[in-house]
Amino acid sequence: MSKYWSDFVHHLEPYVPGEQPKMERLVKLNTNEHPLGPSPKVIEVIRAGADERLRLYPDPDSSQLKQAIADYYSGKGHDIKRSQVFVGNGSDEVLAHLFMGFFKQDEPLLFPDITYSFYKVYCGLYQIDYQAVPLNAELAIDVGDYLDEEKPRPNGGIIFPNPNAPTGRLLPLSEIERLLQANTESLVVIDEAYIDFGGDTAISLVNRYPNLLVTQTLSKSRSLAGLRIGLAVGDEALIDGLNRIKDSFNSYPLDQLAIAAGAAAFEDQEWFAQGCELVISQRDWLNEKLAARGFESLPSAANFLFTFHPQHSGSSLAQGLREQGIIVRHFGKPERIADYLRITVGTVEQNQALIEALDTLL
Amino acid sequence: MSKYWSDFVHHLEPYVPGEQPKMERLVKLNTNEHPLGPSPKVIEVIRAGADERLRLYPDPDSSQLKQAIADYYSGKGHDIKRSQVFVGNGSDEVLAHLFMGFFKQDEPLLFPDITYSFYKVYCGLYQIDYQAVPLNAELAIDVGDYLDEEKPRPNGGIIFPNPNAPTGRLLPLSEIERLLQANTESLVVIDEAYIDFGGDTAISLVNRYPNLLVTQTLSKSRSLAGLRIGLAVGDEALIDGLNRIKDSFNSYPLDQLAIAAGAAAFEDQEWFAQGCELVISQRDWLNEKLAARGFESLPSAANFLFTFHPQHSGSSLAQGLREQGIIVRHFGKPERIADYLRITVGTVEQNQALIEALDTLL
Repeated sequence: MSKYWSDFVHHLEPYVPGEQPKMERLVKLNTNEHPLGPSPKVIEVIRAGADERLRLYPDPDSSQLKQAIADYYSGKGHDIKRSQVFVGNGSDEVLAHLFMGFFKQDEPLLFPDITYSFYKVYCGLYQIDYQAVPLNAELAIDVGDYLDEEKPRPNGGIIFPNPNAPTGRLLPLSEIERLLQANTESLVVIDEAYIDFGGDTAISLVNRYPNLLVTQTLSKSRSLAGLRIGLAVGDEALIDGLNRIKDSFNSYPLDQLAIAAGAAAFEDQEWFAQGCELVISQRDWLNEKLAARGFESLPSAANFLFTFHPQHSGSSLAQGLREQGIIVRHFGKPERIADYLRITVGTVEQNQALIEALDTLL
Repeated sequence: MSKYWSDFVHHLEPYVPGEQPKMERLVKLNTNEHPLGPSPKVIEVIRAGADERLRLYPDPDSSQLKQAIADYYSGKGHDIKRSQVFVGNGSDEVLAHLFMGFFKQDEPLLFPDITYSFYKVYCGLYQIDYQAVPLNAELAIDVGDYLDEEKPRPNGGIIFPNPNAPTGRLLPLSEIERLLQANTESLVVIDEAYIDFGGDTAISLVNRYPNLLVTQTLSKSRSLAGLRIGLAVGDEALIDGLNRIKDSFNSYPLDQLAIAAGAAAFEDQEWFAQGCELVISQRDWLNEKLAARGFESLPSAANFLFTFHPQHSGSSLAQGLREQGIIVRHFGKPERIADYLRITVGTVEQNQALIEALDTLL
């Protein structure tokens, strides 16, 4: 508290990220990082870029990275131009800018009641009115809940992750398109932090829907959480809006090394594909081992499992694992997910260690 | 323009940074970068940090960097605790957060009419009312203009750079203290982007004035513009306010490499002192050569000179230099500074090239 704060600061409820403990030797399965380090080509580019050029400001437009992203998705057949790409200091910064730039509207923003908990925080920061739309009985997003007989519910925007977090459940593209066909007068944002682990990107739809913005991060499937790079792809008028916010906030959101490393990450498609395969096969393995021990997991298209055990509370399991040096995420609320654990898919060894530790607790 | 934008986005007037051309072999004296590359120890730390650990999120608190900053200033006798330090993705991000966190007040924010042009942009972004206080006839900040017979003018905050930009003029600490003694009910921010090139930091005053916040950047005297690191030092309650904004915006504003590199930059005091000495001695050299050619320069405590020639327009000189591959900053407005050039102090060779090029134009 301070009399020098702007009034609204007293009422902010900041986001609480998963802990980043400094202890070594921890099996860290709590913040959905990639089990492997980034592409060796990314490491090479960073080392090559660490020289006297760091005295100079980076390219304020991050053109090299934007071009690499446009080329990557154009190569996948989606015909994306560089001017349709926005980049920022992690997808959290991209999300913050888009909440400010698009969601200050007369009608409330809609998002799921159980979802990325930062959305609510942005609403607090920018004083945006919102309504939480409950997930259905299967803890899934039902597009019908955002509509009224195929007309949109009054809204100033819609945002949700696909796959959703922390559930990991995927919505098929056809359902996203159903929403876009009905909801044409406000922005729809699909937050694809986890899309590469089993979903189809809605970037394939941006050229047909001028009110669709897709966000992604390099922190998960590209294994660059430590570098902070996020992006958005959409119609040029949306990207232009984001640029106006960015250029009124910080001209140079990405540093030289992040720009070059991010581009290299999109270029190394072989490393990327292998990393995603490893995560998917280990997710299957983990899923099976958990099921054999009585866990009930939601179907996951992400790099984590959202799971609970009918005979054990979430808090006791999380605590028991922690005592063995394994940390997973236990949200504890709301009530419907009080006993769920969100467990990141780790390396083969980490996943085995997890199962062995669970065996001592069940 | 887009119907999906929040209303205020249509009225934003974004900041226009100095250009960052991609041409090689340019003598780039337009954005006040350091003439030398960063400390070799910084480069070493980045190369050593470029490995598989980049898969992990950085420390959201950037503790290592904050501690290095606290240690540095405590070593200078100012007794700064880690909890009195805030860091961000360039001082632009730090400034953005503090405008939002402190300057949304009933009374207008005060800053000089000729100063860092981003201040106005932040006011547009956060819809903060401001009044520009004219520099005096010598293009200097006069603290008396912020006071009425040693009482503060009604204000919701005061901010100015020291030395001021783009003038380079320094205000002595005694004048800042005079302002703080009179103005106790609102925040005073001293933006010290250029302080290391000849001024005394107001960080020495933060433990006596709970309404003083000092911002700095590693982009100038630490030669790390390419990495984007800025900081603020002040009373814990002010830092707490900044943390609330940061944690509602982006949990991890600094990447792993920036945190480690920034700490190394504060630790290598020998490199830092030598770099500042070079800039100061080259500033003196440049000042003398310009004066001998009829230029009139403001006294500068920064790593640039603000100068004009009575017989030549600023725009013709800037254009003539550009044709010879030398770029300097020419703002062109307001009227009072229409003919001034802001010339960054470069290397010995760059400064010589500048003087030789000017000799062809005068």
